[in-house]
Amino acid sequence: MLELIAFDADDTLWQTEDLYARTQDRFEQLMAPFGQAQAVAQKLRQTESRNLELYGYGIKAFMLSMLEAALELSDGGIAGRDLQTLINWGREMLTADVRLLQDVESTLAVLSRSHPLMVLTKGDLRDQESKLSRSGLGGYFTHTEIVSHKSRDTYAALLAKYHVAASRFLMVGNSLRSDVLPVVELGGFAVHIPYYLTWEHEQVASNATDTRSYFELENIAGLPALVERLHRL
Amino acid sequence: MLELIAFDADDTLWQTEDLYARTQDRFEQLMAPFGQAQAVAQKLRQTESRNLELYGYGIKAFMLSMLEAALELSDGGIAGRDLQTLINWGREMLTADVRLLQDVESTLAVLSRSHPLMVLTKGDLRDQESKLSRSGLGGYFTHTEIVSHKSRDTYAALLAKYHVAASRFLMVGNSLRSDVLPVVELGGFAVHIPYYLTWEHEQVASNATDTRSYFELENIAGLPALVERLHRL
Repeated sequence: MLELIAFDADDTLWQTEDLYARTQDRFEQLMAPFGQAQAVAQKLRQTESRNLELYGYGIKAFMLSMLEAALELSDGGIAGRDLQTLINWGREMLTADVRLLQDVESTLAVLSRSHPLMVLTKGDLRDQESKLSRSGLGGYFTHTEIVSHKSRDTYAALLAKYHVAASRFLMVGNSLRSDVLPVVELGGFAVHIPYYLTWEHEQVASNATDTRSYFELENIAGLPALVERLHRL
Repeated sequence: MLELIAFDADDTLWQTEDLYARTQDRFEQLMAPFGQAQAVAQKLRQTESRNLELYGYGIKAFMLSMLEAALELSDGGIAGRDLQTLINWGREMLTADVRLLQDVESTLAVLSRSHPLMVLTKGDLRDQESKLSRSGLGGYFTHTEIVSHKSRDTYAALLAKYHVAASRFLMVGNSLRSDVLPVVELGGFAVHIPYYLTWEHEQVASNATDTRSYFELENIAGLPALVERLHRL
């Protein structure tokens, strides 16, 4: 019955928010001469939020936001070597080991035997392709789609492109806002696998969700059994 | 006979290199206290080239390369307000008017009546989608594909995805290296429309090309007649 199973990548297949959170901690320490940790964190969040429309998602956008926040917090007085340090942290993030979440590989191995699988992720093109390649998971996926946002229209266009009806599509991801709600609206199936860290931008008010219309799993390992259940419907 | 006509975007549909060249001129002026124009330009080129694999294409990558080159050229001594100026120039580039090249709109209007058209461009996802949207050309294209590089494998994968044989595919672009040679290798048709500025990275040695296997047009306005000729083959 299901013709296509798509997976979000960041914090669904591999850790991502941890990397940002760790760099943000270091940023707060570096900027300590110019402000309390809380004020520094707030400035960075505001800068990211202001830049989101212009820069989009991803580590390069985050690097630019760190640099801008550092210049603004220090009123241009921050030392050049500290700015270079920020750039170096970004470069470390871009080349950091891809840490797979638990049971991801074994689950994909099982499901890829019976279904075409797709990676369907937001973010920076180069960065996401590089992570997929370094993750070693590339072989399990028939399709890769990297998109700039995940709205109902994005999903509708993708399903049309692949000639798949929404009722035969299952999306798996950690973001209610991006991975679950728009798919459910279209009449597709969605599985929410929460990650302990959620980027503020991805959070939705809990009353915006209807818990009956999608599935929630604690761990991706439960997915093959769920897929089998759907096939028996 | 042709089932799909794809167009490169930057410097094929609209001006792009001009924007980079103009910002590079301003960069040379700003960095004059730290080096001769030629040395500054060389440093920026080297930095871009070093970063290409890690950052990919696009304006955000260029912004980071300008900042890194400025920090290195000044040995960290450049003023914070000058770095902010570099960031502002990048932001201007990201929101600059999209300047269509001559006869692009009328040509797309003609061809879109008889063929499905695709935008097939390298670069930064958010940036390219934004330019397409601001260009007003979106309505002429059935498909949009933004890729991180344009190799023979990239084209082969795309044609498989759209179920189009290479022999029924025509690619139009300003880069021999990215738009023409890989398509010709696959057995497809390609039209080269040179732009007066070519980014160094896209240049190929002239002996790498076989002038018999692709078409060259001075202006995109010649495309409908060429397509008609191909259909009569």
